[in-house]
Amino acid sequence: MWQLYQFPLCPFSRKVRLMLGEKGVPHELVRESPWARRDEFLDMNPAGQTPVLAQVGKGTVLIDSVAICEYFEETVDRAPMIPGGAAARAEVRRLVAWFDEKLYGEVVAPMMEERMRKRLVSRDAPDTRILREAMKTANAHLDYIDYLLDHRRWLGGPVLSLVDLAAAAQLSVADYLGGLDWRGHKQTVDWYAVMKSRPSFRPLLSERMEVIAPPAHYDKVDFF
Amino acid sequence: MWQLYQFPLCPFSRKVRLMLGEKGVPHELVRESPWARRDEFLDMNPAGQTPVLAQVGKGTVLIDSVAICEYFEETVDRAPMIPGGAAARAEVRRLVAWFDEKLYGEVVAPMMEERMRKRLVSRDAPDTRILREAMKTANAHLDYIDYLLDHRRWLGGPVLSLVDLAAAAQLSVADYLGGLDWRGHKQTVDWYAVMKSRPSFRPLLSERMEVIAPPAHYDKVDFF
Repeated sequence: MWQLYQFPLCPFSRKVRLMLGEKGVPHELVRESPWARRDEFLDMNPAGQTPVLAQVGKGTVLIDSVAICEYFEETVDRAPMIPGGAAARAEVRRLVAWFDEKLYGEVVAPMMEERMRKRLVSRDAPDTRILREAMKTANAHLDYIDYLLDHRRWLGGPVLSLVDLAAAAQLSVADYLGGLDWRGHKQTVDWYAVMKSRPSFRPLLSERMEVIAPPAHYDKVDFF
Repeated sequence: MWQLYQFPLCPFSRKVRLMLGEKGVPHELVRESPWARRDEFLDMNPAGQTPVLAQVGKGTVLIDSVAICEYFEETVDRAPMIPGGAAARAEVRRLVAWFDEKLYGEVVAPMMEERMRKRLVSRDAPDTRILREAMKTANAHLDYIDYLLDHRRWLGGPVLSLVDLAAAAQLSVADYLGGLDWRGHKQTVDWYAVMKSRPSFRPLLSERMEVIAPPAHYDKVDFF
């Protein structure tokens, strides 16, 4: 049995949970707060970041969400998430990197810092200037997703792929923290409603952090 | 023929050049300054980052250094760079991410900003506090590489892999900018001397940026 060391509002933990859900890989969750820098966790992963996947009794430890997703793509045939030929797979990997780096770095990371970590750990007031900037950039990202969906059925191409999981994972954390204004993004809203209704996504959306509550539409498939 | 849009001191361009060199993939170099944000380049890659690989006449465009390396690992059998079974491949991908994210973010990116971009573009003086911090962290990274080499023949395991290329690419940029103190890191020095002598690495080490000169040991295999 795999044990997934994860944090509920870590978008990379969420991406891996969606991947394991789509692939049907049984696993149990172990909650790990990245800022606690617990010694046993640092011994396992010197980077100190979630997610980490450990196979109890077998000694296999998988670290880094990209490496974990590639591992299960290679070892589990069901539900290919990096589908197609080499060029199609390169396009999936390009867009996964886009959402993992750009959407995370420009939008999700500052929202997590201002609306979550400051509240739970340092008890500082959020910096409204940083939050305003992140929400403005979030809108540009939603525009880009609208654009992708104008040209293809799913974000990475004609079929569901890891791109959809990566994007939905990031957006769901920003949405939990009240950082997304969905108005004017019909294509993205329709796509996200479909993602939300997938069995792999339902357990994530039903979880709640202590202290921080999401907006009312957060887990509703029909969200307006 | 592939055209590689790259910047001489971009460590991710260097990683891809080492990969193409090891695999024996013919390509020509097109110099692209990321900070110029040239319209035609942004049309090709909305992220605005090097490297980008375009196949003239065929319309294939590969973006993101991870996606590019995976593409050539899948399509060119020669010189496997993500070798072994699924768990070994996950370890290679973990460490590539470590050097691409941690070594880059904590050491190489601040050195490039302070010692290169400020000199070439904004003409500000470097922030010595930031440089000192980056050089201190560089030393911790060299310690970690020493530790890896105490336990394995190459950085990713028993054979040469993409980990060695990724780490050497990052270190070579920090070294060009005079940011590494190699003393006391015998294991890493010996490994890097072997990397420097590879035919895939020689062309990179012979190039010089205008205005900025590397230290005397930079391209010497026997560097003390």
